[in-house]
Amino acid sequence: MELLASFMQKHKELLEQQLRTSVMQMKAPEIIKESMLYSLEAGGKRIRPMLLFATIDAFGDKVEKGLLTAAAIEMVHTYSLIHDDLPSMDNDDLRRGRPTNHKVYGDAFAILAGDALLTYSFQLIAETAEVGAETKLKLIRELSVAAGAEGMVGGQVADISGENRRLTLDELEYIHIHKTGKLLAFSAVAGALLAGAPTAIVEQFRKFAHHLGLAFQIRDDILDLEGNEQKLGKRTGSDTFNHKSTYPALLTMDGAKKALVQEIAKAQGILQETGLNTGLLMELTDLVANRDH
Amino acid sequence: MELLASFMQKHKELLEQQLRTSVMQMKAPEIIKESMLYSLEAGGKRIRPMLLFATIDAFGDKVEKGLLTAAAIEMVHTYSLIHDDLPSMDNDDLRRGRPTNHKVYGDAFAILAGDALLTYSFQLIAETAEVGAETKLKLIRELSVAAGAEGMVGGQVADISGENRRLTLDELEYIHIHKTGKLLAFSAVAGALLAGAPTAIVEQFRKFAHHLGLAFQIRDDILDLEGNEQKLGKRTGSDTFNHKSTYPALLTMDGAKKALVQEIAKAQGILQETGLNTGLLMELTDLVANRDH
Repeated sequence: MELLASFMQKHKELLEQQLRTSVMQMKAPEIIKESMLYSLEAGGKRIRPMLLFATIDAFGDKVEKGLLTAAAIEMVHTYSLIHDDLPSMDNDDLRRGRPTNHKVYGDAFAILAGDALLTYSFQLIAETAEVGAETKLKLIRELSVAAGAEGMVGGQVADISGENRRLTLDELEYIHIHKTGKLLAFSAVAGALLAGAPTAIVEQFRKFAHHLGLAFQIRDDILDLEGNEQKLGKRTGSDTFNHKSTYPALLTMDGAKKALVQEIAKAQGILQETGLNTGLLMELTDLVANRDH
Repeated sequence: MELLASFMQKHKELLEQQLRTSVMQMKAPEIIKESMLYSLEAGGKRIRPMLLFATIDAFGDKVEKGLLTAAAIEMVHTYSLIHDDLPSMDNDDLRRGRPTNHKVYGDAFAILAGDALLTYSFQLIAETAEVGAETKLKLIRELSVAAGAEGMVGGQVADISGENRRLTLDELEYIHIHKTGKLLAFSAVAGALLAGAPTAIVEQFRKFAHHLGLAFQIRDDILDLEGNEQKLGKRTGSDTFNHKSTYPALLTMDGAKKALVQEIAKAQGILQETGLNTGLLMELTDLVANRDH
């Protein structure tokens, strides 16, 4: 994991610098910038930006041309966390061991910080200097589909609608594919688009990320039952406590672990088929499958 | 007002059809589409889309090429109303005589419907068939600036920050220019961009709409004190009751009325300077200045 670790460290720093610069340069009331930055700088693995960077790298292209799109993706992801944590949604007080945005800035500024991050993300893509107008429009269209009612928002709606009842495996997959899968898939698709890939290859990356996304979620459900609370930074067993449908609950723990192995195999199989230099993406996929937090 | 009335009726129908079609064709959970449509179809004057259409008309260009951008603007406006009405913001139960979105669908789905509308607006612009990629990117960038922390969201933040204290005229103008002015200005700017206007003319339309926006807000404040409750569909005097700073409070009623006349004169003066066929825009400006609801 030497290669990926140094790649991630370097590009995480680049990304975090960009996030800070992008917000600081806005001509806006200080309090909203502070609220936006509070959540953007809460840390995390930055899996989505890394997926985008590693995809560009697979084409041998310059990773830096994905910097603004990566920042946009992280802003959309962060906005979704802020809104999901609100009292009227999941009502979470803590995220990654820190008070959630609305606990610090109040519900109104939390909602508005989320709104501002979502809005800004489209601007950042539009301002990318290194690619042509047609590519940027494709990115914007894809991001809107991935993040909106047909994607992430739709997944959150289905998740809320399905609370406190036992879901079928199809319903559970709908939620995950939309709530987390679509934005993950966009990260890979965006990397391929930025690298100028033809449509067929772009679609291979979409499929790869689809399986990666399912693996990500199955691993999440397994960790909630078997993980180390200290490493996770949250209590285990919360899904059971909250009557959430999970893969282990529907498939048994053994079945869930088999499903995880299958999804990883599918994801890595597609990577190999591309014939590209996908070493980093292979490692990133292993990381998702084996992560302990 | 014959000319404008028939223009508005015809294009209002076109717009409302487009809003409905755009939402209905989404592959998303029915409940979120219903919530989005509930607020989109709450009526209203559709001032922003009309401003966009009338601006395209001033260039003698086809108004229909602005249809998706007009729908996008109305979606952004509607999302802002849904979020502003939330208990943690203005806590309004009624809008245009109907229960607000969160009273019908609950806070979570109201927040998500707003998020989905905002997200979808960028997609609609990206899908406009009648103009080139560069123009669409300009529109997306302008919409993001107008709607985000540097525009509408920033205005709402300043409005909340300024509650329950007496504002200076500068502070009051900052709020209005950002909270309502920037999206109004975008409507005119977008019309000019869609019609292929050179930058200097685009900027004239931005200035025109800036003064129109201030006139709109001054009229709003006057109506809150002198308007007819039945026509307004809401109680008068609510600004005083809520300790809101207003133009009449800061300038006296006489001063506010003079300021209104001045802003309208500036707006119409700029229209004349363009040398374009601005009959509809002149009428629209009069309508804003004299509206009774």
